[in-house]
This record gives sequence, C-alpha cells and structure tokens, in this order.
Amino acid sequence: MSERIVVINPNSTTRVTEGIDQAVRPLRFADGPAIDCLTLAEGPPGIETQRHVDGVVAPLCELIRREDNTADAFVVACFSDPGLHSARESTAKPVLGISECAITQALGLGDRFAIIAILPASVARHRRYIRQLGLAERFAGERPIGVGVTGLAGDEVGDRMSDVARALVQEDGADVLIMGCAGMANYRARLEDETGVPVIDPSQAAVTQALGAVRLGWTTPSAGRG
Amino acid sequence: MSERIVVINPNSTTRVTEGIDQAVRPLRFADGPAIDCLTLAEGPPGIETQRHVDGVVAPLCELIRREDNTADAFVVACFSDPGLHSARESTAKPVLGISECAITQALGLGDRFAIIAILPASVARHRRYIRQLGLAERFAGERPIGVGVTGLAGDEVGDRMSDVARALVQEDGADVLIMGCAGMANYRARLEDETGVPVIDPSQAAVTQALGAVRLGWTTPSAGRG
Amino acid sequence: MSERIVVINPNSTTRVTEGIDQAVRPLRFADGPAIDCLTLAEGPPGIETQRHVDGVVAPLCELIRREDNTADAFVVACFSDPGLHSARESTAKPVLGISECAITQALGLGDRFAIIAILPASVARHRRYIRQLGLAERFAGERPIGVGVTGLAGDEVGDRMSDVARALVQEDGADVLIMGCAGMANYRARLEDETGVPVIDPSQAAVTQALGAVRLGWTTPSAGRG
Amino acid sequence: MSERIVVINPNSTTRVTEGIDQAVRPLRFADGPAIDCLTLAEGPPGIETQRHVDGVVAPLCELIRREDNTADAFVVACFSDPGLHSARESTAKPVLGISECAITQALGLGDRFAIIAILPASVARHRRYIRQLGLAERFAGERPIGVGVTGLAGDEVGDRMSDVARALVQEDGADVLIMGCAGMANYRARLEDETGVPVIDPSQAAVTQALGAVRLGWTTPSAGRG
Amino acid sequence: MSERIVVINPNSTTRVTEGIDQAVRPLRFADGPAIDCLTLAEGPPGIETQRHVDGVVAPLCELIRREDNTADAFVVACFSDPGLHSARESTAKPVLGISECAITQALGLGDRFAIIAILPASVARHRRYIRQLGLAERFAGERPIGVGVTGLAGDEVGDRMSDVARALVQEDGADVLIMGCAGMANYRARLEDETGVPVIDPSQAAVTQALGAVRLGWTTPSAGRG
Amino acid sequence: MSERIVVINPNSTTRVTEGIDQAVRPLRFADGPAIDCLTLAEGPPGIETQRHVDGVVAPLCELIRREDNTADAFVVACFSDPGLHSARESTAKPVLGISECAITQALGLGDRFAIIAILPASVARHRRYIRQLGLAERFAGERPIGVGVTGLAGDEVGDRMSDVARALVQEDGADVLIMGCAGMANYRARLEDETGVPVIDPSQAAVTQALGAVRLGWTTPSAGRG
Repeated sequence: MSERIVVINPNSTTRVTEGIDQAVRPLRFADGPAIDCLTLAEGPPGIETQRHVDGVVAPLCELIRREDNTADAFVVACFSDPGLHSARESTAKPVLGISECAITQALGLGDRFAIIAILPASVARHRRYIRQLGLAERFAGERPIGVGVTGLAGDEVGDRMSDVARALVQEDGADVLIMGCAGMANYRARLEDETGVPVIDPSQAAVTQALGAVRLGWTTPSAGRG
Repeated sequence: MSERIVVINPNSTTRVTEGIDQAVRPLRFADGPAIDCLTLAEGPPGIETQRHVDGVVAPLCELIRREDNTADAFVVACFSDPGLHSARESTAKPVLGISECAITQALGLGDRFAIIAILPASVARHRRYIRQLGLAERFAGERPIGVGVTGLAGDEVGDRMSDVARALVQEDGADVLIMGCAGMANYRARLEDETGVPVIDPSQAAVTQALGAVRLGWTTPSAGRG
Repeated sequence: MSERIVVINPNSTTRVTEGIDQAVRPLRFADGPAIDCLTLAEGPPGIETQRHVDGVVAPLCELIRREDNTADAFVVACFSDPGLHSARESTAKPVLGISECAITQALGLGDRFAIIAILPASVARHRRYIRQLGLAERFAGERPIGVGVTGLAGDEVGDRMSDVARALVQEDGADVLIMGCAGMANYRARLEDETGVPVIDPSQAAVTQALGAVRLGWTTPSAGRG
Repeated sequence: MSERIVVINPNSTTRVTEGIDQAVRPLRFADGPAIDCLTLAEGPPGIETQRHVDGVVAPLCELIRREDNTADAFVVACFSDPGLHSARESTAKPVLGISECAITQALGLGDRFAIIAILPASVARHRRYIRQLGLAERFAGERPIGVGVTGLAGDEVGDRMSDVARALVQEDGADVLIMGCAGMANYRARLEDETGVPVIDPSQAAVTQALGAVRLGWTTPSAGRG
Repeated sequence: MSERIVVINPNSTTRVTEGIDQAVRPLRFADGPAIDCLTLAEGPPGIETQRHVDGVVAPLCELIRREDNTADAFVVACFSDPGLHSARESTAKPVLGISECAITQALGLGDRFAIIAILPASVARHRRYIRQLGLAERFAGERPIGVGVTGLAGDEVGDRMSDVARALVQEDGADVLIMGCAGMANYRARLEDETGVPVIDPSQAAVTQALGAVRLGWTTPSAGRG
Repeated sequence: MSERIVVINPNSTTRVTEGIDQAVRPLRFADGPAIDCLTLAEGPPGIETQRHVDGVVAPLCELIRREDNTADAFVVACFSDPGLHSARESTAKPVLGISECAITQALGLGDRFAIIAILPASVARHRRYIRQLGLAERFAGERPIGVGVTGLAGDEVGDRMSDVARALVQEDGADVLIMGCAGMANYRARLEDETGVPVIDPSQAAVTQALGAVRLGWTTPSAGRG
C-alpha cells in the first residue's frame, strides 16, 4: 500500500508540526495510507493575521506541487484554511482544510458548535468564514484565549483554554467545541474532561476525511475538475 | 485490535446490506476496526414513508442494545436517518446517520449539494431534514428517480439515475451529488463519470466518520452525556 | 352539526388530558364541532425523551385509524409533535401538532417567541424542530423549568414557571411566550399577569386551527394528497 | 354572547366586502362572536400600490377607534396588511392582518407556500413582507395574474388564476397556495380541485385566528402593551 | 452645475434639520450638487410611533412632488424610512432612506452593526426593518437611550448615548455603530472617541449615496421604472 | 484641498485602469479629493483564478504602503476584492473593495441583485463571497459571459453582456444588476437601456463610498483599530 496523505503545517514552528503528527497517529494503519506531516519553512512562526494567511499561499502551493507526484491527498493544517482554494487549483488531488473539516465534523457531534481562538483578531476572520460556509445557524460563538501560536506551550495556556471552554458551553450554549488552532492538540483530553462535551482537534478531523478521500476517491474542486 | 463498527441496514432487504458491505470495504484495515453490516430483520423491505421511518425505531434501538457490549460505534444506514436521536439515547457509543454524514461531508467537496431521491415522497421529508440541520443555504435541490428501494436493481435504474444526476448539475446548479439511499451504492462510479462532479455514497461517508469516532474518541449526544 | 375534532394526549396521564379538555372549552360552540380529548393509554406518563417521542407513534396512528370514521380533524397534543407526519399518512383528515400550531400562532402575537420547556433535554429537541420549521430567525430562546410532565401539578411549579418566563422576556428579549407542554395549561393566566406578554397554550392554538380546518376544509399533507 | 369581530375591507369596493362576508360564514356560530364585515369608505377601489397602502392607514385607524367600544378583535382584510402596526397602536384589542395570518397558517398546511398576486407591482412588496416576517426559507414564489382588484369579477380571471396556480405548484414547487387578495375568495374551491393542494383564503385564515383571539384572550402588540 | 439633492426632515423640529444641514456640509463641493435640507412642516415634533411613521407619508409625498422639478435626488431623513416606497412611486428621481443607507453602509465598515435607538418602542420596528432588508445575519443588536426626538439636546443625552454605545460594543459584540435618529448627528465624534469603532450618522450615509445617484445616474425603484 | 483617493487596479492591463479612470470622472470635484487610478504592475493581465486573487496580495499591500503617506483612502478595483482584509491591516486609512461596495450599494437600488461575471470559474468564488457578506437572501443569481479580462474589448462582448443581463432580469428575477469586473465599465449605459433596471459599475460604487470615507472620516477595520 503506497497511498500517502501529506499534512502541511503552514507555519514554521516545528513543535506545532510534531503535535499534529502525534494527534493523527491513531489514523495510521498497517495497510493504510502514510500520513506525513511537513512544515512550511517559508511560513511565519504563527499565522495570526490576514497578512500571514495570504502570505503563505504562494509557498504552500509551491510545496503542494513539489509533493504532488507522491501524494494522494493534502491537508492544510492551519485553522484559517490559508490558500485552500488556491491549493485546490494547484493539484488534481483532494485538498482539505482543517477549519472546514472541523466545522463540518462538529455538525454531527452536537447541535451548536463553538470555537476556542488564539487571539482576538481571529474571531472576526473566523466569523466571516463560518458565514461563507453557510453555517452561521449552528454557530454558538467564539472566544479567544489571548495567546499567540508560539505561546501555546506556556504554563498558563491550559487554564485559559479551560476558562474559555467553560464559558462557551455554559454561557454561549455550545455542546461541541472546536480548538481553533492546530497547535492546541494536546489540550483536547483535558477540555473534554472538564466540559463534558466533545472537543474537536481540527487536524484529526481533516485527516479522517483525507482517509476517506484517499480510500474512496473523493475529490475537491480543482483546476482539473472545475 | 478488537474495535468494531456496527452498520445497521434498517430495511430487511439483504441485497442492500450486501451493497453497503461492499461499498465500505476500502475502509477496512488489517489493524483497523472491524466493520460489520447487519440487516434489521424487523424492518420493511424498503423505508419509503414516514410510517416506515418511525416504525423501525423500536427494533433498531433493540438491536443496538444487543450489540452494545461488542460495538465501538454504530451507523444507521438509511438515508432518512430513522431513529437517530433515539438510538443515541440507547447507547453511550457514537451513533452516526448516513444522511447527516453524507450532507456534512458534501459541504467540503463542493459548493452546492443535491440529492438523488428514490420516490417523490422522500423529497419533502429530506427538505425538512436539511432545514433541521441548518444547511438549506448550501442545498441546490433534490429530484426523485421514481423507483422504490426494492426496485433499485432494475435494468433502467442506471439510466434514471443518470438523467436525474445530470438535471441536478446542469439545471439546479449542484457541484456535488449525494445518492439518497443506501441501496444506490453501485451506481456511484457511473454517475461520477457522466457528470464530472463527486458523488457521495452515504454509507461510505458515515463509516469514514465512524472510523474517526472509534479511533479518536468522538462522541455523539447520548443519554450518558446529555 | 356532527363535526368532531379529536384531540389526543399521547401520554397516559389523564390529569393532562383533563387540563387540555378544560383549556379548549372556550372553543366549543352550541352548533360547532365537538372537541373530544382522548388519552393514549399506551403512552408513557410523560413524553420526555426522543425514545418516548418515537415510541408513541405506532399506537397513536392506531388510535387515529380507529377514530377516523367519526373524526373530522385530529390534534396531537404533545409539544414534541410526536408522529405528526406519520399520523398524516394514516388519515386523509387534517392532523395538527400543538407545537407547530403554537409556534406559527406566536408569529402573529409578537416579534420574538420563546419557549418554557419542562426538562433540559427538551431544549435541543425543540431547537432542531424550530430550525426544521425554518423559523429560527424569530426564536428568542428556550429555558427549562427542570420538572417532568408528571410533576407539573407540584407546589413550586408555578414559581419556577414565573422565573423562567421572566428570564425569557427580560434577558432573552422575547415578547411572546409558548408553554412547551400540554400539561402547563393552568399556568397561562398567571404568566401573562406577571410578564405582561401573551402566553400561548399550545393545545388552544392547535384546536383553534383545527376549528378552521374543519369548518373551512383545510387539509394537511396526507397519503391521500401527497 | 355579545362578542364581536370587526373585519375591515380597506378598499371601497363593496363587492369585495360581500365576498369576505360570505367566505367567513362557516366561522359564525349560534353562541359565537358576531363577525361584521365593514367597508372603508375612504379607501380606493383597490389597494394596488404602496401609496394606496399608506394612504388608508389614517381612515382605517379612525374606523378602528370608532368601533373600539363594541369590538373584541379587528381584522384588516387587505393582503398588504396596510397599517397593521399603526392599527395595533390605536386599540388594545387584537388586530390581525390577513396576509400575516394566511402566511403563518400556510406553514402548517404544506412545506413551501406560494402566493397568487393580482399585479406585478405586488410581488416585490410581498417579498419584502415575507422577509420582514422571517419566513423566506419556506417561500416557493409568487406570480401575478395581471388583473387589478376591481377586475376580479371578470370572465377570464378564473382561467388566469388556474394558470398561475398550476405554475406555482408545478414549476416553483409549492405545495400550499395563498390567494393574495381578499377579493379572490370565490375561486378557492376551483383552484383546490385543479391543483390538488390546499388553497388559503386569507380572510378565512385571519378570522379563524380572530376567533381564537376573542375566545382565548390572545393579544397583539399594542400601545397598551408595548 | 445646477444639480440639487433635497433632504427632507419629516419631523417638524427645525433644530433636527439644522443638525442634518451641518452634518452633510463636508459633502458640499464648489461644483457639486446643492444639498438643501427642508423641514416637513406637517410632521410631528418627532417620529416615535408607527402612527407617526405612517402619518407623514402623505405630506412627505406631497412635498416631493412640489420639489420634483428642481430636484435630482431625495433623501428621507428619519431613521424609520417613513414612506420610502411611496415616495419612490411619487417621483422618477432616486429617493434614499437614511436607515437603509446607514445599514448598507455599515456592512463595509465593520463585521457586525448595532443601532443606538431613541425609545424602546423603536427597537421592534427597526428589527422588522432589518429582517425586511435581509440583513439580520450581520445585526449585533439595538438598545434605546430612552429619550425622544425633542429631548435629544438635553444635558444627559451624551452620557446615555455613551453608555448605550459601550454596551453595544462590549456586550453585544458590535464593531460598527449606527445612530438611530437624524437628530443625534452632533454626538458622532464623541462616540467614536469613546468606543474606538466607527459611528455612522445616517444622514451623512444617505447624502453620500445621493451624491453617487446624482452624479452617476443611479435610480431607485419608481413608478416610472417598476 | 489636498485629499486624495487612490484607486488600484490590481491587474496589469492599463486599458482597464483607463476605463476605471473615465468611469469615476463624475466624482471629481474642483475642491474635492483627487482620484488617482494606478495599475499594479506586478499583477497578471486579468484576475481570473483564486491563484491570481491570492497572488496579488503581497504587491498590492506593498503599493498601499508606498502610497500611504499621500493617500486618504484606497480602493481595490477588482471584483474579487483581492487582499481586502490584508490591505486593511497594512494601513490605517480606509480601504474599500469594489465588490463589497457594489453589492451593498445594490441593496438600495433594487430588491434582488444579480451579477454579470466574466468566466464560469468566477461564479462559485463570488457565491462564497456573497455568503460571507451574509447577503445571500437578496441574491438573484450570477451568469458568466465566458470572456476573460483581456478579451473585454472584443467585438461581441456587448452582445454577450446584453444576453446575460436579460437572462438575469427575466429568468432569475433580478431588478438591479452588478457588472462583475472593473473592466466592464463602458457597457453600463447600454445594459441599462436594454434591461430597464439600474446597472452598477463597481468602481463607481466604491469611489462614491471612498468620497464619503474621506470627507466624513469613515474608517474600515485596520491594524490600528482592530
């Protein structure tokens, strides 16, 4: 079995890539697709502004083209889904965004989803995206923890995540939570314990769908299809 | 690895169960969960009315309880998602409906999804469900082929499926199609060839998500959680 | 005048049926339709879970068929509208659900409606239904009193109803309230006094529309019409 | 029993008032409210423009104040619901608009409603109103017959009504129709026969709800309540 | 250059007209359209109820017809947009409402808009209008200051405006504010300083669009066009 | 008066820039802001794919920073609004996108807007954007003429524009049209003549709003504000 899913962390922080790699381990099977997690060297340490989002599109598409011959599916592993539609124009292989996958996955695990964001500036950007997906009717809210990507390993991050998670459930009425950054993966179990609702790691959601795409032949809109 | 996904065909037509079994084969891995497809003996030959939908809930929940000790996730494999929320009250294991999974999966494979239905009476029932999911903004339309579940092996079914698929793409503007019955699985390749857009077999979509649920610990709303 | 409206309380608590019977008394006229309130003996004491909802469909439809010859309209008098669409397939007579009727009636009595629920588990079920009706844009919210159907005669229920009603008006912005259980009928006057907004008893709303259906020949979707 | 429902036809065409009077006859009971249909002498022969709509508000409110002492509920019987909210400020009694009542009634009689309009200019006005009611998600469409209010008794009107009704059902997908003018009452039976779907006369829908308002004490937003 | 924009204050309080006149001064150019601000003598001191709204339509349309020969565009300068569609039937020139213009302008200046209202009774009226415009998805909320039009020059109005503005931003999540009355113009700078978000004076928004209408030939729906 | 609006055509086709320059001429006043139309030399000849959209963001923001000292407002003159939110992070001056401005402007000129696109691939991109703006409820449709940006001066373009415009009005029900490319400016008059509905040139709409922004101090979300 030589199938291969390529997961690209579009920021340059390898600790984040390692966290993704560990998070998707349960989706690796003896005779299943390889799941390779790559770091986009040209990316910023964290994608925290729209400039960052737009800035990684070119090197991301370049990396996708370089890997295209040996990949069967791509996952863009940043919660802003940077360059998702450009990436889809760059390859005929399916390209999945972790934000889109996490949000659509959440629809089946609860009635109203909410997002734990890193920074306040992310909130309006994500709200625009949720409207773009046509899913605002199921959206309970979003709150930031006030910590950037490179600070996610800090001592107090867990407590802030817990506070925000509880507020989203108890005040905003969410019954399923999404961690709004690929770098939050290791907090999932703690948040589920504390809130009692399912918590989605977006990289896990996307790789699950990539598994389906590879094995079942799902395609995403591409230059070869459009 | 002793994980096990139980897929229940709530109609009593074993040919449909066999089709599901074959469709989900690519999701079986050497060290992955077993995927067992069961037939609900108490079900009608096809679920074609709301009476059929409501009528299978009790035996379906009974079957789920019987299998509960050895199952890690359940899939209800009828496109009306009969008894989905009752089933979730009957077990602490995740329970997935193939309609909900197919529709949420479609959101990532195209901009506007459409459904190929069996009978005209299905259309209003599905439209209610799409509104219930809050997804009407992405819904392009639905058209019936005019054939019931037990007639799906008939000679002219393929041609009718093609006609309806083409109309949904060309007239209604869909760019991703969902086959609105678990018994349509074997027409997927033909429809993709003829329309050029991805076609989702709902059982495949649901078992993919069940794989994620089992391996990643996702839960659906249940009596144990509610 | 031999017209007859059959109101079915799908739970087996006769006190609830008696409350409905009393609530609809103002809609009985000397030369108007008889309004007969029946108790579904096979129902549970209260319908409080999705299992309860789905479980009463078969005996409910059976009762409708038994009464069909002498009835001109049916009302299903549980706020979850159990089996509404199955019931409509079981008779050519109009079948009205008290939840659907209460909510559509509320649209004309205020700008934003809210619901007083019995138990927390009802809230997500009702929210799904409101989305299914396409009416989420007018929905202000729902709060439970934390008392099951059979406890509605308890001493403190009135106070809890008042607290919830006030919160729905003052905090959630509702200007019309719906009592989310057929067994709450006798609290209507008190809640209107305390909140200053109209409060809808769902059985009253449904029987009013049934009166129109019988006298004016309105039909609901049925097997005979579909 | 001295209860009294006052139905006001805000155009000055008495033939329309007579049609309303006849249409609501089945809602008169020996011991029920009187239903008196009045003509607004100051109104134009037909309300066909926004100027007409706004122009009748003052005399309409004046008439309501004159009748206020002896009325228990008012119905404004023009499908543009002229002055509905001003009327509600003019009396503490409930005031119902036939358009609002017909549309909310339609929600229970089918899945997607459509409107038969008189003139093309009505269509955008009604579409604004349906959005205002928050009900666009259930709206299948509207088509005009191209005949003004005073022409509704003409020979060919029935045929035009039939053509429009059929197009709304067969092409636009409606499964319940609303006649978009109080003057169309006598075509209801024919349209139901020809289309096989329920057809709502808006005056009948509003008087049914007025019956409930009078007998059950429903109120609409008013100066005394707001 | 003899182009002329006629701005009509439909209440009779000349202080409000003077405030509008001053607010739109930056839009007067040496070779641009004249911007004349007129007071509707027949209007009430402030438009605070639906009766007021409907009551000014006739004299407003009369004034528009009197000015029609020398005007190139009209602005109706009351935040309830009284008689907007009637006014458009009264002239072939473009007619703009300050509420519609302020709200559509706000869509480009922030993600979620909120409104500072004068009286509590305005809130439901504006909510209906926002739904009518189809813009509820971007609406963060509305709060009244509890002061009528003629009281807007009072000493404590600025403080109340500030309190409400802050609540709309901090509690309701707005990132752009609209002053919901033409008479609030002189508080704009203070509110922007205190909240840090843009604050729209609706008369300024409408005259800007009127400038475009006059110079670029935009039309609004009228009797001559419809 | 040294105010200055900088309009940036992000494609490198100077003919398009010249067309914009001519289209916005009526918005230049003797004592008003200068309106300078610049060409982004680094842009592709036409922006026709998502790759093009994302590819111009970096040089566009660079150009904005270079002009920042002497500009009071920026207009991004491509109908895909490339880099709009990145541009807003790059300057404290207001930045307007011609697509956002055209669509919000259209809301006041008709009830349902439609878009004339260049290529089929634009349609899904624009539909996503309209959902992102939360304006799908007012959207009548979009049709492509099948001609790229550099082909817009061709002989048959006018006829194709006319055909598409008529279909949008007559079949899709639009009553206001938007030309979906900055390079279509010179067809506006012809289309208005032929369809009888207003046709919006997006550059004109955006510069009108920029005029307001400069003269009235409107801001858009920026790094300095966020």
